[in-house]
Amino acid sequence: MSLRLFGYWRSSASYRVRIALNLKGLGWKHQGVHLLRDGGEQLKADYAHLNPQKLVPTLVADGVPLTQSLAILEYLEEAYPDPPLLPEDLAGRARVRAIAAAIACDIHPLDNLRVLRYMKNALDSDETARNRWYAHWITEGFNALEITLGASETGQFCHGDQPTFADCCLVPQVYNARRFHIDMTPYPEICRIEQACLGLPAFDLARPEQQPDCED
Amino acid sequence: MSLRLFGYWRSSASYRVRIALNLKGLGWKHQGVHLLRDGGEQLKADYAHLNPQKLVPTLVADGVPLTQSLAILEYLEEAYPDPPLLPEDLAGRARVRAIAAAIACDIHPLDNLRVLRYMKNALDSDETARNRWYAHWITEGFNALEITLGASETGQFCHGDQPTFADCCLVPQVYNARRFHIDMTPYPEICRIEQACLGLPAFDLARPEQQPDCED
Repeated sequence: MSLRLFGYWRSSASYRVRIALNLKGLGWKHQGVHLLRDGGEQLKADYAHLNPQKLVPTLVADGVPLTQSLAILEYLEEAYPDPPLLPEDLAGRARVRAIAAAIACDIHPLDNLRVLRYMKNALDSDETARNRWYAHWITEGFNALEITLGASETGQFCHGDQPTFADCCLVPQVYNARRFHIDMTPYPEICRIEQACLGLPAFDLARPEQQPDCED
Repeated sequence: MSLRLFGYWRSSASYRVRIALNLKGLGWKHQGVHLLRDGGEQLKADYAHLNPQKLVPTLVADGVPLTQSLAILEYLEEAYPDPPLLPEDLAGRARVRAIAAAIACDIHPLDNLRVLRYMKNALDSDETARNRWYAHWITEGFNALEITLGASETGQFCHGDQPTFADCCLVPQVYNARRFHIDMTPYPEICRIEQACLGLPAFDLARPEQQPDCED
């Protein structure tokens, strides 16, 4: 088994995959792709050959390049089922995947680096407008998520008392929110679950600050 | 078994779920949620109770509200495995899910109605800028997808000769592209697969124009 993760310390999609790899106790190698240096290493031909979208992460698993963090989580679950990151019952699995997708589809892609760049360059948006935009989509998403997490299915983590895909997506999104100084006071459930997650070594070791390419 | 789909004829996320329901030969009931009428029926309290994100679709399956189209596709695959909408091998499943996510995470959410509204109201973007934005994210996504679809795993459909999640996501995204007059000439593979899909009744009957709430 060989797992090499092409990612970037501050990329929240890479962070999701690092958490899942750690939760499953898999050995993996880090391969930094610097999103800013030289205009972005993800745009260079050798990386684009692995990932035509020119986005991180890419997990090269036994020579096969796998892209898109949600698809990579599903792959890891199928290839390395123990410990599971999805509950057993169908409705529970659907709930976990819906929470993950609410973050990975409806918050993060809107606040991605390439989007902020487009806003600056093509829409001529100033920094204030871009920060408002960034905060708006996190707030929209977290408002809904805080309601969803009020349900009885929530336990110590987003769903029950074992971490799932939902937690793999939540923690990196909260990291982004804190980085951009979003007021987290309205989200006690989200904050409680984030803290429970970060108490586990699998999450702690996946933090951006723990990565070899960290520049903070 | 009871399946009620809360959706909107022109919502491409709803369209994905309609295709999957049809491909699996499932009987389902349509429940229209008009995204524009009265400022948007999806924002009303009774719908928000089903779907705290206030987005369509929601599939109520035997009384349980399921949200997020990708999570709903996974639910349908697990609850009604025959015919499968994912290939059997792990690498193939990862490829199909990555194509689906490339559309559902990195194209569609950026061009969603709520985003265009925010651009108009909060960023004061004019129609020309919004149309450029819309086209930009489709073009970025389709450029990468056309490369991905050049691989040998592609068959009559996005992956092999049976429709998968990838096709469920591709066809609605091409519908959006055509609606906004995106030049599809650079994407012969995408167009070929779209046509192969629309030749199947499951796709044809899921088209926006075939829905009871269609206003075209």
